Amino acid sequence: MMLLVIYDVSDNGKRTRLANSLKRYGMSRIQRSAFKGEVDSQRVKDLIRLIRREVDQTDVVHLVPLDPRNWEMRVVIGDEGGRNDGPATVV
Amino acid sequence: MMLLVIYDVSDNGKRTRLANSLKRYGMSRIQRSAFKGEVDSQRVKDLIRLIRREVDQTDVVHLVPLDPRNWEMRVVIGDEGGRNDGPATVV
Repeated sequence: MMLLVIYDVSDNGKRTRLANSLKRYGMSRIQRSAFKGEVDSQRVKDLIRLIRREVDQTDVVHLVPLDPRNWEMRVVIGDEGGRNDGPATVV
Repeated sequence: MMLLVIYDVSDNGKRTRLANSLKRYGMSRIQRSAFKGEVDSQRVKDLIRLIRREVDQTDVVHLVPLDPRNWEMRVVIGDEGGRNDGPATVV
């Protein structure tokens, strides 16, 4: 499943640990607090458990399934930071 | 079109103006730097032009079309801040 993970995490340490976890799950960073990648369904469940342990109640994390065709129609304004992974409309 | 807009904007003033613009386009905030909403195709073009004027080259904004069914399958960990707009798995 293609997945977008976006998050508001206040604590610097927790935010760094979360980013490292997402990288370990093979996701790539598209913004400071946004990752995207292919994660199979079982591992999504593991990821959810892991995130729940890592963040505070006042933080918020969204895991959004993506349709690859929708992802290709995304519009990127500015610099995806060289992490541009394939077709997109960069303006 | 259901649209997710996420952004990394460094300048506080620009970030506030962008958030206000997204609200004017009828989008609702789901995180500090993430909005979601229904925007018709013509207004998406206007929104892209507006965002391009408002942000710096070093900033990044993603506009991602969403499939409503995918959006309903999102997982929200933590507090969507009372802005929970309909079905989601909140864990």
